[in-house]
Amino acid sequence: MPTESAPSHVIVSGLESVGATVSLSPEESHYLLRVCRVRAGDRVIATDGLGTRSTVRVLEARSPVTAEIESLDRQVRRCEAWVMCGVPEGERADWMVEKLAELGVAAFQPIDCDRGGWGRAGLRMDRWQRLARAALRQSQGRFAMELRPPTSIDAALDALAEGAECWLAAPSGAAACTCRPRAEGVVTGAVGPSSGFAPRELRILESRGFTAISLSTSRLRTETAALAWSAWWAASTGFP
Amino acid sequence: MPTESAPSHVIVSGLESVGATVSLSPEESHYLLRVCRVRAGDRVIATDGLGTRSTVRVLEARSPVTAEIESLDRQVRRCEAWVMCGVPEGERADWMVEKLAELGVAAFQPIDCDRGGWGRAGLRMDRWQRLARAALRQSQGRFAMELRPPTSIDAALDALAEGAECWLAAPSGAAACTCRPRAEGVVTGAVGPSSGFAPRELRILESRGFTAISLSTSRLRTETAALAWSAWWAASTGFP
Repeated sequence: MPTESAPSHVIVSGLESVGATVSLSPEESHYLLRVCRVRAGDRVIATDGLGTRSTVRVLEARSPVTAEIESLDRQVRRCEAWVMCGVPEGERADWMVEKLAELGVAAFQPIDCDRGGWGRAGLRMDRWQRLARAALRQSQGRFAMELRPPTSIDAALDALAEGAECWLAAPSGAAACTCRPRAEGVVTGAVGPSSGFAPRELRILESRGFTAISLSTSRLRTETAALAWSAWWAASTGFP
Repeated sequence: MPTESAPSHVIVSGLESVGATVSLSPEESHYLLRVCRVRAGDRVIATDGLGTRSTVRVLEARSPVTAEIESLDRQVRRCEAWVMCGVPEGERADWMVEKLAELGVAAFQPIDCDRGGWGRAGLRMDRWQRLARAALRQSQGRFAMELRPPTSIDAALDALAEGAECWLAAPSGAAACTCRPRAEGVVTGAVGPSSGFAPRELRILESRGFTAISLSTSRLRTETAALAWSAWWAASTGFP
């Protein structure tokens, strides 16, 4: 239920010009009608997940909800975080996806590793999309997290942005307090599967310029390391 | 299954003198026998959760497992993190407890707030203890996280260590990249319930010297803020 400090927040594509009418998806319509209980005339915040945030006024409070765009504010991201991640144990990926989206990670790339592939866990894309959208609404962000299908470490590295800054979560790395991510461009964090990267993979990452960083004195599970890396990034530079 | 780089790790009380024999609890015996499949003569790492780490040699590989202490290494913690936390939504406290324990938080204090009390969620102490112990084994740490029963914010503040450094997770706070926790003594992070601290509570925290800190540009759920604060702490000073 929205409070005065937290207006309803929905994801709407086609936020292009003030005065235009947009039509909400069934999922967003349901959220506004059943969870937020909006009525015709109510104002809500909308984002397209691509950097635009709008105030829209609800025209028709039945599914699909329609609304008029009253204001538009576009932002370009100055820096963004990508997470390349091996498979965690069990169903821990679900909440990892939710938390990375909340922390504002730009792209989540599952990677199939020598010691563990995503297999069936990588088939949860629909569920992950729902979790990531809910996290975007909840966090009132303006950038959606891109969810990529699982791929090999080599393919993931080939898709890396030119000049990306690369970090590898590793207990043997430099203490995080001595490191700082760059505040511009793409910053990537690689996290091994629950049984760790194989030596071959570590050599590949090293040859591609990944710097090892230690996020805690204790050994972290895959999903915890991904989250700790993202929180470190968010705390360090996530202030566009 | 243990690999060469990750010996089995168990929690055992009474790690006091080399050569002495210790008897493991049913839970730890089960873990060693069924999960790690240890046999008589195998060496495993043991901690008492209070700072002592030992190598022990298994004498009897049936429940209760008995083992002989071969080495003892005691550490005193130079700095420790406490988390005072309002109730999150649903069952999100379970994984929050697991993750804070993994990150090496020393004490978890649920607080009943004006806008949300722990109620039944606070009755999951047994489950939380199991999760925290599993996290300690997993992270191969030597300090167990203390789980305290839910209490009022006033009682929690009265129990705060004299001279503790106090932080409040708040979107309006100073950017985390401009803040650094102290590397000695107790450092406390306060996180509001899912609907936030009430103005009365914020005034109390402010009067007690809590400094507001923003951990992300996006609005974080209770459990995500608690985890992001703990990760920020672990990355900043968690290197005893």
